[in-house]
Amino acid sequence: MSKVNSSPPVVQLVLRPGLIDLGWGHPDSALLPADLIRQATNAVFVTRSQEALAYGYATGPGPLLEWLQSQIYLNEGRKPELEQVVVTGGNSWAIDQICTTLAKPGDCVLVEAPTYHLAVRILRDHPVELIPVFTDEDGIDIEQLSDRVRQLKRSGRTVRMLYCVPTFNNPTGRSLEAARRQQLVDLAGREGFLIIEDDVYRELSFDGPAPVSLWSLDTHDIVIRLGSFSKTLAPGLRVGFMTAPADVCRALGENGLLDSGGGVAPISGLIVNEICRAGGYQANLGLIVDAYRRRRDALLNGLEPLRDRGCQVRPPHGGFFVWVSLPEVKSAMRVLERAEERGMSFLPGTKFFVGGGGDHALRLAFSFYAPEELMRAARMLVDAIEVN
Amino acid sequence: MSKVNSSPPVVQLVLRPGLIDLGWGHPDSALLPADLIRQATNAVFVTRSQEALAYGYATGPGPLLEWLQSQIYLNEGRKPELEQVVVTGGNSWAIDQICTTLAKPGDCVLVEAPTYHLAVRILRDHPVELIPVFTDEDGIDIEQLSDRVRQLKRSGRTVRMLYCVPTFNNPTGRSLEAARRQQLVDLAGREGFLIIEDDVYRELSFDGPAPVSLWSLDTHDIVIRLGSFSKTLAPGLRVGFMTAPADVCRALGENGLLDSGGGVAPISGLIVNEICRAGGYQANLGLIVDAYRRRRDALLNGLEPLRDRGCQVRPPHGGFFVWVSLPEVKSAMRVLERAEERGMSFLPGTKFFVGGGGDHALRLAFSFYAPEELMRAARMLVDAIEVN
Repeated sequence: MSKVNSSPPVVQLVLRPGLIDLGWGHPDSALLPADLIRQATNAVFVTRSQEALAYGYATGPGPLLEWLQSQIYLNEGRKPELEQVVVTGGNSWAIDQICTTLAKPGDCVLVEAPTYHLAVRILRDHPVELIPVFTDEDGIDIEQLSDRVRQLKRSGRTVRMLYCVPTFNNPTGRSLEAARRQQLVDLAGREGFLIIEDDVYRELSFDGPAPVSLWSLDTHDIVIRLGSFSKTLAPGLRVGFMTAPADVCRALGENGLLDSGGGVAPISGLIVNEICRAGGYQANLGLIVDAYRRRRDALLNGLEPLRDRGCQVRPPHGGFFVWVSLPEVKSAMRVLERAEERGMSFLPGTKFFVGGGGDHALRLAFSFYAPEELMRAARMLVDAIEVN
Repeated sequence: MSKVNSSPPVVQLVLRPGLIDLGWGHPDSALLPADLIRQATNAVFVTRSQEALAYGYATGPGPLLEWLQSQIYLNEGRKPELEQVVVTGGNSWAIDQICTTLAKPGDCVLVEAPTYHLAVRILRDHPVELIPVFTDEDGIDIEQLSDRVRQLKRSGRTVRMLYCVPTFNNPTGRSLEAARRQQLVDLAGREGFLIIEDDVYRELSFDGPAPVSLWSLDTHDIVIRLGSFSKTLAPGLRVGFMTAPADVCRALGENGLLDSGGGVAPISGLIVNEICRAGGYQANLGLIVDAYRRRRDALLNGLEPLRDRGCQVRPPHGGFFVWVSLPEVKSAMRVLERAEERGMSFLPGTKFFVGGGGDHALRLAFSFYAPEELMRAARMLVDAIEVN
């Protein structure tokens, strides 16, 4: 084989030596159920190898579609038709394919301010215009959103969709307030735009049941809910799912990519199906929810001192992130410099705003590090904020 | 779990009872190396499970990038830099992502007439205009292509890229003639458009070495060559690769989808790497090339009678397809009806033309059926053509 001075890496994560980097919202590798997945993979090759290795059914392996149908009914009380479920290559893949299949050049796509910064990068690869919508402590401000949409339509623009993370939001950790959920769905139904509900953190709920999904409230056929196995099993599987109106699922299932290449995750989809039906999914979920809850608590404990320092730390009830609002006098960028000098890092709030904002806020991910490391990182951050 | 009257399928292929359907250009499941892949998968989980399950490096697992680099150098005499290789989710995925990342609304994309019909569907999901270019027995007519490009540019259009299958073409089985390969690459370099070289059939070469790739001739940094493991190992792996100019690979590796989701095939990529480094890839390739060669020969033998009936049957030197040209008086659609009455099917030529043509031609895939079945199907086709 060819020798090169430095081999290219296998994984995406890059850790900087001597730094606890709370910028990475990745699952801790130690929490990935390798044995569970290895055993399920063996089972798939024993029982279904020829099927698994062929071009897959466009909307995903039938058995997984059926498991998702029944599981979602169990969890949410709304049962999707099989024609309303698609197995995806993860939520990033789904966002990309939704744009390719449903968006037209010049369409407006609404995004929360702040929103998941890498979803913005996916959306920007498509010829659409991103429009930020204001959020407060309870999530999207429905009044302001409604005004924005009407204003855009008056000026002749097409509002195609809203991308949002209403449950355990990335980056804020907040969830859209209960009453606003129905208001948002009804507004979209009235104004005729789609909602892409990025629901990747739903099952990582630490303090009781997660808020109801927008999809479960949708009587207008306008919500595309994206779920994923990247946080609950493993990112490397590259498998997620979508529950959406039948016409949306049909458009995706019949698009050029799936028509030519077949289903996006034939092997991984069957592996996930095996794990889910053998009960391994729920068992593993219990373990990681406990683990991530402990990490959230450790980080919040470490951040306690910030409360008397004019900072705002809202405890998230699920997901991977804590959002810290600094006093107006403090710049997140300057805090970042001080923090890295002390041995910890994070992402400044500015990364998560389309069209400005976030100068006095920062996102901390508690998914990747053990509680002790999170405590240490929190102490460094408190220190870095004080000296600023 | 939920009970439905008929469970949705696992695989894409749908066979109609009592019909030998040469419309499907799929590998025969019996030729998929299930044991080889199962063993490699076990090895990956033993040696690299945590890496395999994490978010992968954007352009693919380092070891596979290095294997591809050395293997391509061995096969083609040109060694790509590591920055000139990307592990893809298969060629369909690559075509889709190239359009998303590099094409702009209104761009012209040139395609052969005839061309791979499902690539057309992928391209049409993007806001580009498809322009067919004339081909003859030796592939793309460079003169006419050159005129077409200049004419388009004169009319103010942007010619962004040409999509083509120059080696063991789908649907014609033909390969672009040697001298024309350099002429095509030089024309693209001169006129400043990219060539997407769909090179999926290169290694399925039955009668000696395949023609040199356009990529290996490219001194202008304009060829994006797409290779795949879908035909040489298994479609279900959803893994391919791209050798392309470094700036193209960078644009793809840094696009929104890969930035958010990480590499597209972390597990499958490592499985393929394991197979390739253990020598299983070459061993399996020898077996399937022999098998597909026998199938081509069986089909061609069965089609012999057509030669004295005004039909043209060009023996392909590799790939999956035989293209039959009928006398002008015979319609492929009518032949199709007669053929299905007799128990065989195929795709009519019309499917493969953007903007008309192919009424008197048809594509036969010899990849999926055993030689005896191909002989029987050929006899039915000969009969169907006679009675027309």
